[in-house]
Amino acid sequence: MTTDTLSLTFSALADPTRRAILARLARGQVSVTDLAKPFEMTMPAVSKHLKVLEKAGLIERARDAQWRPARLQAKPLKDVSEYLERYRKNWEESYDRLDEYLREIQQKPKDKGAKPGKKKEN
Amino acid sequence: MTTDTLSLTFSALADPTRRAILARLARGQVSVTDLAKPFEMTMPAVSKHLKVLEKAGLIERARDAQWRPARLQAKPLKDVSEYLERYRKNWEESYDRLDEYLREIQQKPKDKGAKPGKKKEN
Repeated sequence: MTTDTLSLTFSALADPTRRAILARLARGQVSVTDLAKPFEMTMPAVSKHLKVLEKAGLIERARDAQWRPARLQAKPLKDVSEYLERYRKNWEESYDRLDEYLREIQQKPKDKGAKPGKKKEN
Repeated sequence: MTTDTLSLTFSALADPTRRAILARLARGQVSVTDLAKPFEMTMPAVSKHLKVLEKAGLIERARDAQWRPARLQAKPLKDVSEYLERYRKNWEESYDRLDEYLREIQQKPKDKGAKPGKKKEN
């Protein structure tokens, strides 16, 4: 149903094991056998995760029939990062509002009398 | 099963309608009725998407029982953006490799004789 590229990428990333596999592959290509080791997973389970990552274009499998190491393809991660940039002003604004709120509540005690141990600035 | 925060966010973003809702909310808070209009969706369908977004902390619904406008919460998007930063060197490296490859194939004609119309540089 959701076959657009961004949806495929987000869907592939929505699993901690798949993110751990990507983190491992970011350090270099690995065989499926070596990938499976730290996860204590069966080979079919690892293969299933790799298929999801491959479909999303996040990894590439070598054609070599015997070893077929997996390699990270970072382009979809770059695309997601670029997609998120349009919201940067939103999260920066919300931090500005938090700052404003913190300033506000720090100023309040002054109106009702200074807090003990806090110097009056004006 | 996958209830960690990042997985929830990625999962919520893995749908083009939910991303369109977020894009609309990035411009300001909207009632569910107004949100539904451009999507030609039923109210229950929109409500279902809003529930997924709310569970992922990507939106907040006002407590006002009558109107309950939805508002974007950009913090999870910031977290995803920060998560992706660890892969920046990977996608930048792959662009470096592409540059290298392009330089290589542009130099090749020289070895086999200059292309017509292309000046020899050395």
